[in-house]
Amino acid sequence: MKLVLASISTARTRPKAAPADVLSTEYLTRSARYTPSEPKTFDSEVALLTWLDRQSARTTPALILCDSRGEQLTSEELAARLGRLRDAGTQLIVLAIGPADGWTTVARSRATLIVAFGRITLPHELARTVLAEQIYRALTILAGHPYHSGH
Amino acid sequence: MKLVLASISTARTRPKAAPADVLSTEYLTRSARYTPSEPKTFDSEVALLTWLDRQSARTTPALILCDSRGEQLTSEELAARLGRLRDAGTQLIVLAIGPADGWTTVARSRATLIVAFGRITLPHELARTVLAEQIYRALTILAGHPYHSGH
Repeated sequence: MKLVLASISTARTRPKAAPADVLSTEYLTRSARYTPSEPKTFDSEVALLTWLDRQSARTTPALILCDSRGEQLTSEELAARLGRLRDAGTQLIVLAIGPADGWTTVARSRATLIVAFGRITLPHELARTVLAEQIYRALTILAGHPYHSGH
Repeated sequence: MKLVLASISTARTRPKAAPADVLSTEYLTRSARYTPSEPKTFDSEVALLTWLDRQSARTTPALILCDSRGEQLTSEELAARLGRLRDAGTQLIVLAIGPADGWTTVARSRATLIVAFGRITLPHELARTVLAEQIYRALTILAGHPYHSGH
């Protein structure tokens, strides 16, 4: 199973946010100890969906969108959903942070799951870091490895 | 009005999480453009409450605790709460990230407000970054300054 942390990053949402990016990369590197995990940036939602279509020729990818109107899951619940996809033989899971103005209904209708990390608004780069950390946390939960309890 | 981002950081929760700390500092620096904002680390919850008692001789500080069992507010709602405290003449607002095992009932009973940023579990240093960003965002909302809409 391969995980892709996708982000839609236009010029406006691609600032000099180095520390957040460093942190996202760090969590993905740790995630890769459990399963291949990599970042991928798209210019637009359309570019993401086109890429997803191309992957679909070989496998049926699962698309998980982050959206403030999504389901609020605990970290354990997110881990359980990923575990279920893995156990069903899913080869590719794409977890995606949307454009600043949110996902269109086209993307939403393609999604396997839409998750929200609380009701607060986060800047793009920090939402990405939080998602990267939740991916890493989910993998440690699925592997039964201890990771500090946090907040 | 002065804001303090307090964290309870024992040896266990004080790791080499440099990028998260850099980012927290960055958000507090930006916050300080609006109102004095500074970080403060305590060894224990008791140390925080003792320090708070000492401040209380001069002013009545408001204590806002982050806790996964707290109220889920939007960023706008958090801004409105801070605005109300400011308008009521509050001189010192302490926003605090708890110890890994959560706040005791002693701290909880002292709190003006207990907020939760979603149902997910975050590591201490990242929870702190998210809180620092929410403080900055709240100040821009109160000042009516544009800040990107984010996620």
